[in-house]
Amino acid sequence: MTKIGIAGASGYTGLELIRLLASHPKVELTVLTSETFQGQNIAEVFPSLNGVVDLELRPLDDNIAKECEVLFLALPHTTAMSKLPGYLQSDCKIIDLSADYRLKDPKAYTDWYSVTHTHPELLKQAVYGLPELHREAIQPAQLVANPGCYPTSVILALAPLLNTDWVNLDSIISDSKSGVSGAGRKPSLTSHYAEVNEGVSPYGLADHRHTPEMEQELSGLAGKSVRLTFSPHLIPMTRGMLSTVYINLNQTLTDEKLVEHYRSFYKGESFVRVLNPGKFASSHHVLSSNFCDIGLKVDSRNQRLIITSALDNLIKGASGQAVQNMNIMLGLDEKTGLMAPAVFP
Amino acid sequence: MTKIGIAGASGYTGLELIRLLASHPKVELTVLTSETFQGQNIAEVFPSLNGVVDLELRPLDDNIAKECEVLFLALPHTTAMSKLPGYLQSDCKIIDLSADYRLKDPKAYTDWYSVTHTHPELLKQAVYGLPELHREAIQPAQLVANPGCYPTSVILALAPLLNTDWVNLDSIISDSKSGVSGAGRKPSLTSHYAEVNEGVSPYGLADHRHTPEMEQELSGLAGKSVRLTFSPHLIPMTRGMLSTVYINLNQTLTDEKLVEHYRSFYKGESFVRVLNPGKFASSHHVLSSNFCDIGLKVDSRNQRLIITSALDNLIKGASGQAVQNMNIMLGLDEKTGLMAPAVFP
Amino acid sequence: MTKIGIAGASGYTGLELIRLLASHPKVELTVLTSETFQGQNIAEVFPSLNGVVDLELRPLDDNIAKECEVLFLALPHTTAMSKLPGYLQSDCKIIDLSADYRLKDPKAYTDWYSVTHTHPELLKQAVYGLPELHREAIQPAQLVANPGCYPTSVILALAPLLNTDWVNLDSIISDSKSGVSGAGRKPSLTSHYAEVNEGVSPYGLADHRHTPEMEQELSGLAGKSVRLTFSPHLIPMTRGMLSTVYINLNQTLTDEKLVEHYRSFYKGESFVRVLNPGKFASSHHVLSSNFCDIGLKVDSRNQRLIITSALDNLIKGASGQAVQNMNIMLGLDEKTGLMAPAVFP
Amino acid sequence: MTKIGIAGASGYTGLELIRLLASHPKVELTVLTSETFQGQNIAEVFPSLNGVVDLELRPLDDNIAKECEVLFLALPHTTAMSKLPGYLQSDCKIIDLSADYRLKDPKAYTDWYSVTHTHPELLKQAVYGLPELHREAIQPAQLVANPGCYPTSVILALAPLLNTDWVNLDSIISDSKSGVSGAGRKPSLTSHYAEVNEGVSPYGLADHRHTPEMEQELSGLAGKSVRLTFSPHLIPMTRGMLSTVYINLNQTLTDEKLVEHYRSFYKGESFVRVLNPGKFASSHHVLSSNFCDIGLKVDSRNQRLIITSALDNLIKGASGQAVQNMNIMLGLDEKTGLMAPAVFP
Repeated sequence: MTKIGIAGASGYTGLELIRLLASHPKVELTVLTSETFQGQNIAEVFPSLNGVVDLELRPLDDNIAKECEVLFLALPHTTAMSKLPGYLQSDCKIIDLSADYRLKDPKAYTDWYSVTHTHPELLKQAVYGLPELHREAIQPAQLVANPGCYPTSVILALAPLLNTDWVNLDSIISDSKSGVSGAGRKPSLTSHYAEVNEGVSPYGLADHRHTPEMEQELSGLAGKSVRLTFSPHLIPMTRGMLSTVYINLNQTLTDEKLVEHYRSFYKGESFVRVLNPGKFASSHHVLSSNFCDIGLKVDSRNQRLIITSALDNLIKGASGQAVQNMNIMLGLDEKTGLMAPAVFP
Repeated sequence: MTKIGIAGASGYTGLELIRLLASHPKVELTVLTSETFQGQNIAEVFPSLNGVVDLELRPLDDNIAKECEVLFLALPHTTAMSKLPGYLQSDCKIIDLSADYRLKDPKAYTDWYSVTHTHPELLKQAVYGLPELHREAIQPAQLVANPGCYPTSVILALAPLLNTDWVNLDSIISDSKSGVSGAGRKPSLTSHYAEVNEGVSPYGLADHRHTPEMEQELSGLAGKSVRLTFSPHLIPMTRGMLSTVYINLNQTLTDEKLVEHYRSFYKGESFVRVLNPGKFASSHHVLSSNFCDIGLKVDSRNQRLIITSALDNLIKGASGQAVQNMNIMLGLDEKTGLMAPAVFP
Repeated sequence: MTKIGIAGASGYTGLELIRLLASHPKVELTVLTSETFQGQNIAEVFPSLNGVVDLELRPLDDNIAKECEVLFLALPHTTAMSKLPGYLQSDCKIIDLSADYRLKDPKAYTDWYSVTHTHPELLKQAVYGLPELHREAIQPAQLVANPGCYPTSVILALAPLLNTDWVNLDSIISDSKSGVSGAGRKPSLTSHYAEVNEGVSPYGLADHRHTPEMEQELSGLAGKSVRLTFSPHLIPMTRGMLSTVYINLNQTLTDEKLVEHYRSFYKGESFVRVLNPGKFASSHHVLSSNFCDIGLKVDSRNQRLIITSALDNLIKGASGQAVQNMNIMLGLDEKTGLMAPAVFP
Repeated sequence: MTKIGIAGASGYTGLELIRLLASHPKVELTVLTSETFQGQNIAEVFPSLNGVVDLELRPLDDNIAKECEVLFLALPHTTAMSKLPGYLQSDCKIIDLSADYRLKDPKAYTDWYSVTHTHPELLKQAVYGLPELHREAIQPAQLVANPGCYPTSVILALAPLLNTDWVNLDSIISDSKSGVSGAGRKPSLTSHYAEVNEGVSPYGLADHRHTPEMEQELSGLAGKSVRLTFSPHLIPMTRGMLSTVYINLNQTLTDEKLVEHYRSFYKGESFVRVLNPGKFASSHHVLSSNFCDIGLKVDSRNQRLIITSALDNLIKGASGQAVQNMNIMLGLDEKTGLMAPAVFP
């Protein structure tokens, strides 16, 4: 059994890692940290874990990396940045769920996060943990930067198109809708029940921090600089995410042809499900699972492609993908512990 | 007091008409019809009306138009089409909330609704009831075709731009999100609680029936044929609608300049609120009101404008707009009975 | 036009007072206070008020009572206690929405609120503002203590029974369910969207602070000491409250007999609607209205009465009732500005 | 691998059986039936199952029992009653999720279900499938009648008390709150999104069909006839159930003493979690799991005990309990496939 640590276990992605790993047959939860709840049992913080997990929360100290073989960092931005280099000194493999090591270009980090990166030399070492694109690099990596939820949904939606000549790369728009859990567990007016329930609100239009991460990966796939308009929206549900992605076509294409092309591109992938022609992705069918569903629909009147991409923001958009990366890094079957279908309804 | 009839009073737009008109100081509810609940008191069907409205539901017969001065039709498509010509024979003014008389081109009706229009000769007579664009024609009209909810949000979002040379008319996309009440009161799997709650689903991508209505009005404003990609989504809330509209800019423009232009265009309009630069429209702030909020945000990296347009689908998107039209047709102050702000939270 | 002040205008009950009074024909909003948002326009804090109310928020100073004829206090507990005596020095009528002046017995205040009352001499002067029970005392009062939401629903449910010999006064249980807005606008984990949505949670079982207020009023009606078990629950909705109240019957009674008795007791009351025999109250039908619906059902197998009592916690449970009290205190028709039916759906 | 059939696979309890059994290590899904969707693949009906389950839906014929070793009946009431005797002819073990074989007394069935039981002779053979009470009888049974969701929550809440002399058995009230999925997948106005969302509604007060099932089991435990008042409520969430149960105490008891007693009673039970003194059960922490959480709180002012009991209506309240029964009947570890903690948030 591989020993596992989770730094930041009392947030939502931390809890989701615990939930997934508690029933994983090849690993053992060993270290859980929380500053706020240190000294308490994790099952006191999350009563859902009663009778399933029994571990005390510890403070975030420098020893934790020595006690585990894989360490997940579910810490706030900048905390991860500063703590991570120390942890790398041990033999421990690290999967960082923050944004701190996702961007290759330290200047982009400064531009979008308004903070200077303190360890730019590590950015090259970090592998962007989207298995469907970077599996070979993830396998031997010591440091994996786990993608954001929005980028996962958008990049998987567009990846099969970017080195074709079918599409106009200047026309990309992603209109994305997220459940509220993406904002984390810290109380604030923007995730206050009465302010969120029964309404839909855009936020961060044209300047959300997940944008450069998408553009980095899309550009890598296209072999040239790609930009997009990214529009996130908060909708009244706890989990789930849907990106509706628009791109202009350079030629006439059918839904069938596109589905065939996507299925070929994602052949062998367990967690990307390309829907039949004419079907749209819905977050309902991926909730609490590690699947990303992709639907393809040509708007032939306007020679434009509409791609719908749905996932659970806390799973394929965060903790499930992190476990998928762990499986790869440990040489396990990538699907281990991750094949539970959505809970529906 | 002007005598009012509502045909189809037991649906959601019927109920919303009753609610608005019950406290309207210049009119009197006289006739309510319902096939399903005929013979019952409306307050038995909707207990919210207990102590407020006390009228028996009647079947839909040919006499109802004779007993009222304004008749609202809140009937299913095709039922309105066939009944309306008879009602026009009386002196009664008619406001039709169905789609049957909205399109000027009978062929477009056939193409999008898969039914041949039985009274194409009346299409010219019907005035498209969007007061912000057609107030002068609405005032003397006998027949007003009340706009759909999606078209109202999209047309108001774009109207100020269409006769400028600032925008590329081939680039319009509206990604729209609606509450579930838009689907009406008839039970079906698509509005079944457990199938809708906690998830977001696209539907009718690229072929929703509200598309031709938008294109008709946008083309009229532009003075040439305009098309758009329209993508409706169902989100888990009862009421409310947000359209996020994308259009490419031909030149560099600021949020401030655009807000100024929109405020000038909508000067004197009571129900269109153009938000300050940098603010996004949210359905929260218009819920249960007749307001349409519009926010403007330039994505300067991509020279693209993002317009957010929020309204209550049952009010400014249906019954409130119908009452606004009635006020105009009766020569009343357009705001009468309609200035209640949103119920929030 | 009577000049109105609202101290604590940036909370939910403050906003609801503004919304109701903005369309009230006999009053004029003059003073709004907020510590957090002072200097801002109220419509910046609540964009729903754009185009409807245009007033700047002021700090809570000693002058405000001099500038208005009726002052509503929508302040936290203990803040109201300390500020109110100063305001009483002016001629201003005061309606206090906090719990500070509701209990006649200062010891009960200490026991349940863990604070010593600083102005026990005022408790006798304050009138408990439940119009259906204390209308005559409210009319000439300078200080009205507006009831809590739970007490309003429970007291109205039981009032008609307490001086009959039909019921066993030792058997009263109220199992109450509330929407989340009752917890106010201050962010906390207990009103954090993801912690509240999709689940039901009891809280404060057997020791909620609203208990003594209920017992005071029920005892007053019964002419002897009455106690009850009170069990509040938080359910995933923004507004609305339902109390399901249980009481053992001393004799066989029918639903019809009880409905008749309740209708007689509430004869002439505009805001209490006693439902037909066999109908249960639902919060759906009172949402955003000032109505309290009451349903009566005898469990004849167990000779027990089940009373269902529904209201909107922010209206009949707070701000609407406060406006009702204001109308009475000003000698206006009690219904003025309050007859809007529920927004449904 | 044991061969499994599910009759009625396209409803919610059918789907939940499929989800749980798809990852169960000792069984194999063999037969799925659906009248409505026969001929379709189950993953077309429920896209959540894409890539996880691949089986065609068959009509409900007499052969299905011959092709499997365990057959779950997730059929409507009366359909199960008539089909089940035929299936019993084969060697197949049967777990019936309907109410048809739960009551021992055929007269009670007639009284509460308004139908005469066609096979009263089988009622004695059927074992009531609540493992915590009837494990020994379940193990060798061929026919298990799986309990209803409400009865499971109420019986587990009360079982430890019924053969003590601590409580007054004439005073039992259960005020229960359920998510909407309990009403099944058939569209109707009572589960129509806009009619259910944002409101709480009682239904079936004092005459709900689950009552006799509770009374049968409670009476069995008490060794004499026990009755209760049962009040179900529909609340706006998809899954989850909370019963708040009231019973008068004959003597002074503390929370600690009661928790100790309950923990002793449920010693060794994997799925009943008795919470620490002073903690209340919440449906949040059991969602999508097979746990039933029980909290105990004495209202010492009124010498009354308040028991809170939470479960997932589709799992411990239906399909999870059915799988638990299957495990027992097959001699497997009772926990197999059922230890996943709640998905939270």
